[in-house]
Amino acid sequence: MKVELINHTPEPGRSAAHAALTCYSEKVPEKEKMSQEKIEEILEKIKESGHHSIIEHASFTFAIQEVSRTLTHQLVRHRLASYSQQSQRYVDIEDLDPVVPDSIEENEEARKRFDGLMEEVKDTYMELKEKDEVPLEDARFVLPNATKTNIIVTMNARELWHFFSLRCCKRAQWEIRDMANRMLELVKDKAPIIFEEAGAPCVRGPCPESEEFFCGEPIED
Amino acid sequence: MKVELINHTPEPGRSAAHAALTCYSEKVPEKEKMSQEKIEEILEKIKESGHHSIIEHASFTFAIQEVSRTLTHQLVRHRLASYSQQSQRYVDIEDLDPVVPDSIEENEEARKRFDGLMEEVKDTYMELKEKDEVPLEDARFVLPNATKTNIIVTMNARELWHFFSLRCCKRAQWEIRDMANRMLELVKDKAPIIFEEAGAPCVRGPCPESEEFFCGEPIED
Amino acid sequence: MKVELINHTPEPGRSAAHAALTCYSEKVPEKEKMSQEKIEEILEKIKESGHHSIIEHASFTFAIQEVSRTLTHQLVRHRLASYSQQSQRYVDIEDLDPVVPDSIEENEEARKRFDGLMEEVKDTYMELKEKDEVPLEDARFVLPNATKTNIIVTMNARELWHFFSLRCCKRAQWEIRDMANRMLELVKDKAPIIFEEAGAPCVRGPCPESEEFFCGEPIED
Amino acid sequence: MKVELINHTPEPGRSAAHAALTCYSEKVPEKEKMSQEKIEEILEKIKESGHHSIIEHASFTFAIQEVSRTLTHQLVRHRLASYSQQSQRYVDIEDLDPVVPDSIEENEEARKRFDGLMEEVKDTYMELKEKDEVPLEDARFVLPNATKTNIIVTMNARELWHFFSLRCCKRAQWEIRDMANRMLELVKDKAPIIFEEAGAPCVRGPCPESEEFFCGEPIED
Repeated sequence: MKVELINHTPEPGRSAAHAALTCYSEKVPEKEKMSQEKIEEILEKIKESGHHSIIEHASFTFAIQEVSRTLTHQLVRHRLASYSQQSQRYVDIEDLDPVVPDSIEENEEARKRFDGLMEEVKDTYMELKEKDEVPLEDARFVLPNATKTNIIVTMNARELWHFFSLRCCKRAQWEIRDMANRMLELVKDKAPIIFEEAGAPCVRGPCPESEEFFCGEPIED
Repeated sequence: MKVELINHTPEPGRSAAHAALTCYSEKVPEKEKMSQEKIEEILEKIKESGHHSIIEHASFTFAIQEVSRTLTHQLVRHRLASYSQQSQRYVDIEDLDPVVPDSIEENEEARKRFDGLMEEVKDTYMELKEKDEVPLEDARFVLPNATKTNIIVTMNARELWHFFSLRCCKRAQWEIRDMANRMLELVKDKAPIIFEEAGAPCVRGPCPESEEFFCGEPIED
Repeated sequence: MKVELINHTPEPGRSAAHAALTCYSEKVPEKEKMSQEKIEEILEKIKESGHHSIIEHASFTFAIQEVSRTLTHQLVRHRLASYSQQSQRYVDIEDLDPVVPDSIEENEEARKRFDGLMEEVKDTYMELKEKDEVPLEDARFVLPNATKTNIIVTMNARELWHFFSLRCCKRAQWEIRDMANRMLELVKDKAPIIFEEAGAPCVRGPCPESEEFFCGEPIED
Repeated sequence: MKVELINHTPEPGRSAAHAALTCYSEKVPEKEKMSQEKIEEILEKIKESGHHSIIEHASFTFAIQEVSRTLTHQLVRHRLASYSQQSQRYVDIEDLDPVVPDSIEENEEARKRFDGLMEEVKDTYMELKEKDEVPLEDARFVLPNATKTNIIVTMNARELWHFFSLRCCKRAQWEIRDMANRMLELVKDKAPIIFEEAGAPCVRGPCPESEEFFCGEPIED
């Protein structure tokens, strides 16, 4: 897996603070003239007041590489985002190179079985797509969930907060959680105040899960 | 594939017409008192004026069964909709029973190869999930795109129009096109005026595709 | 203000429970065969697990009458909803009949001043729109926030939950809070399990507001 | 009215082209290494293929000042966008300074009447808000649609396209059309290829309106 932050709204904190100030001012304030102190002061106040919409003005674009189709099928269920994904209809997956779960990687027998099957898949895919009658979009029906894919994702800061709440939690599936944690680290670097308390809910307070779903190991402060 | 319309806003046409009339009236009209003629008259006018938002008040829920994960990965990219999909994380896929593309079905060699691989997949999946160390959510990494899945989908009439424009077109992938056509037939039955001209753009006028993408066989009136 | 529930997805609870069960079953269950007990059992479980998306399959349509434009300007900021609002561009507001805030109603001097101004507004609006050169869409520039308007609103149950959390809270402006409370009562009647704990957050637990914004009077159980 | 583009995703064209290329490549291409020629070539192809989603990765933020509440009530109906608007609940509108439609401005009698009423409104608002019993959020009920307001708007390029199609058209109300035209000019400057053909539909081809709504003066090439 490779996760890069490839683009984002310049100065996310300034943008959010400027939008907030506009709501409470007679005139639109001059964005470039706001001091760093003023920005921080506004963002702190906003956190307390729950006025979350102002961080929507900052968007972040990630290039996600070499993740499984299992991950992307979950990811694209987040609807307040924009996606551009590698097409299995048009791209010939020359090198299957699957994502291997740790539980399989670490079990010799399982790993062998897994690898053996992947070889079979590769051969079948190659053979099918070489037939004139079978288009690429049909040959891909044999490709497994483990197949690597790439996807460009753009989310605004508010949706990212929501995404991190769900996907950085230990209840999330391991692969998407790994990705979410990497994304969080990257945006924290660019917008530290906005994302200071982002992540699984246990970062901010008691776990909201019921007893049945509580992982028992909340993140410690 | 099995496509059922399992629920919808009662009287979609009346609802849309009533909403439209509200925009142009001093008082909210009495919905139940609108005559069928009045409803039809309003809906015809709306079509001409391009006031599409009024059909958003009618929603339709479909149960889609036995389609491939290839299909659902495309489907859930439509963001103005609600989805509940069978979870491969929690549901043990006891019977793989894959979707087989026609191009493979009709080529004996391809079909044999495909079937052979599917048997291998089934055995591997069974063997992996029987290991204590490999949870179901990891065993599924070997399942192919062809694996059957079920999904409940709710879209409002406006989003359905958009969906049909893209997915009933011959440029769409065959499986999702088949599904879209079945959905269209079902909603046409319940809301004939609203969906009268829904479908691929060539139902309504000249194909908007560029020469490169024109299928050459627009739907005839 | 008049708030009516004029349409909704039939059997919202059954629909939500059916969608939930689909996620965890090998086959799509038969919706009509689910017993009331089964439905309740599933919905209770869902509440605990935080699997909120399943209630999106149920939508509710309200006719809201005789509310101020102040209210609707706030209302339409909720983006996951569908609206059809009386148009001031096309509808001649023959009878201004403004919404009067209690604080003005109950202060004789304020009320007199307010009424006097409204008479002035009415006369000016009439005079302007009678001029051939001034179209209705320009005459309305003199109409006040207090002007009554009508709007048809459709939201799904999940968005309604979110809406009630914000707008039933005492921090919300009085008019939209009044409307939200009426809407809540109406949907609770039709879908009691789904909306059992809906409303301001203090219905469900401690107030999430910071000290500065805490109203001091949480709703008691 | 004052319309400024105060922020945007850096290099919108490069971002969109990079996302498009990702869909059709085995690896995510290196964004910074794409030549200007390559970018233009991809964007031209995309235009033909109708693959609009790739321009969603570029967002634009505008500061809109001194527009009427009539305008913003229309504007915020566009749901795929983020807004931060001056609050009449919290901001004391010290200087009413209304937006005056040309049709009123240019008619001496109408203008006089309008100005007279605005003076009355100002006095009433001042008097009301000075009473301890009447909070600012109630005093504003007398403020007219013409009242000036400020709003920060963020939309991605795809939603902007849609917005321009509706709001640059002569059927749109004059004030929002003026604003849309200014926004279009600003983004065309920053992302000329993406917005080359944006605007009212008659910029790109024949008017899609029915005879009844055709303005008779399509924009000439």
